[in-house]
Amino acid sequence: MQQKHPLDVATHLEEIGNGSFVGLPSPGYQNMVGPYGGITCAVMLKAVIDQSTRLGEPIALTVNFLAPIREHKFVVSAEMLHTGRTTQHWFVRLMQGVECMASATVVCATRRSSWADTEATFPEPAHAPETLQPFENDAAPDWTRQYDMRFLPGFEIGAMDGVPRGSGVSKLWVRDRQPRVLDFVSLAAITDCFIPRVYLRRQKHSPAGTVSLTTYFHCDAATLRAVGEEHLLGVAHPMKFQGGYFEQRAELWSASGSLVASTFQMVYFKD
Amino acid sequence: MQQKHPLDVATHLEEIGNGSFVGLPSPGYQNMVGPYGGITCAVMLKAVIDQSTRLGEPIALTVNFLAPIREHKFVVSAEMLHTGRTTQHWFVRLMQGVECMASATVVCATRRSSWADTEATFPEPAHAPETLQPFENDAAPDWTRQYDMRFLPGFEIGAMDGVPRGSGVSKLWVRDRQPRVLDFVSLAAITDCFIPRVYLRRQKHSPAGTVSLTTYFHCDAATLRAVGEEHLLGVAHPMKFQGGYFEQRAELWSASGSLVASTFQMVYFKD
Repeated sequence: MQQKHPLDVATHLEEIGNGSFVGLPSPGYQNMVGPYGGITCAVMLKAVIDQSTRLGEPIALTVNFLAPIREHKFVVSAEMLHTGRTTQHWFVRLMQGVECMASATVVCATRRSSWADTEATFPEPAHAPETLQPFENDAAPDWTRQYDMRFLPGFEIGAMDGVPRGSGVSKLWVRDRQPRVLDFVSLAAITDCFIPRVYLRRQKHSPAGTVSLTTYFHCDAATLRAVGEEHLLGVAHPMKFQGGYFEQRAELWSASGSLVASTFQMVYFKD
Repeated sequence: MQQKHPLDVATHLEEIGNGSFVGLPSPGYQNMVGPYGGITCAVMLKAVIDQSTRLGEPIALTVNFLAPIREHKFVVSAEMLHTGRTTQHWFVRLMQGVECMASATVVCATRRSSWADTEATFPEPAHAPETLQPFENDAAPDWTRQYDMRFLPGFEIGAMDGVPRGSGVSKLWVRDRQPRVLDFVSLAAITDCFIPRVYLRRQKHSPAGTVSLTTYFHCDAATLRAVGEEHLLGVAHPMKFQGGYFEQRAELWSASGSLVASTFQMVYFKD
């Protein structure tokens, strides 16, 4: 019997009725404090994808991180706010006891054929993933070992020796370490794989955590299936650090140059 | 007696208890179908700002547009989901009868002094607002007449003659037409002033509407007060058009080069 993929274990939801599910944080996806934000994004999105009344496919996801999720069961509930002809809006809460630990809004839509164009420029990578080494760091949090991340030369994380850099840009190939055909749930999980830009800029660790994350999906399920088990090209950069918060953005592209998702976050940090 | 500013009329909320308010769409901010999205963003944010239990100032706002708000009273209700030491999370619904017309999540935070840096590059404008003409078009929707928008040369909206362009970038000076000192509510309203990029690219009008809009605020109230009644520099561009939806982004900068907000949206469009 085939063992379940770690992502499917971590995002397994047991239906308890009324659009609610029970889940359990997976030790394999732990971060420094609580679970990896990406796995929370995946769980929040899956709570909508698993609804029998769902219309179409996700196009927008915003996840807010309210408190560190504890290592015991949680209840995730999706409330349908509105269904139109082509779009559907959901509000999702992840609760532990009476405390809300994470909230999300999800917009689903039926895509139609339309005029199409990508105005953003594909950041042509100079190296194929096969020619690069995967990131390995035994001291890094558990979740990093769930991903095969290959940083392009010149975009390595660095020595973390406290010598600041002028840029917080990353460029890397990323996929699930244990191969798995890409879908919206795994893509949502990948959106948070870009470590806090403040680490890169200042080349040191400090307390930091995502407060709010928004992702726009630029493709349908068939396109994701066609990406299959291949790496995505991720490019991330910060915008502004100010008053203990900063914004970072990233794009995820297929190797063939299709923009599959854009993702943004506001991150809390301490000096 | 001084007349109320149109923005303050349009965002006036009358408290009815339990974190709820009654409001009324303002004819001056109408768009093609229903109110201008920016005024809805302003109302959703104000429903949190007006709470007596609010902590700090807004740092992130996501507004989802569920259905066109009708021209009669609405009830806007803010539910506090979580208050931590430095952040506070809210969920906001705008209802007409039993129908939810818009939803929002708002993150508030107390900013602290920290390491600061703007990695994004200020798009130095070649022309001061005083040297440019404000946009005037009697055929444009009502809301456009609430703003003083001055497009930089080479970034004009165009003749809308159906001759496509290669780029959907805009660069303009923007402020309330009737001067008003900038605050979070008026800034939230301005975030949606960037017309659908599909109009610019294809140089023609077609049905289009924002589905989800996220804004990150990169400054505190004092910084906004210091901007005062001056223009902001707005730069907007699209990322990808596909399957009847597209993403566009914009940054809003003070004339002195401070990034005050970033804003993103997914927009529905028809050919």
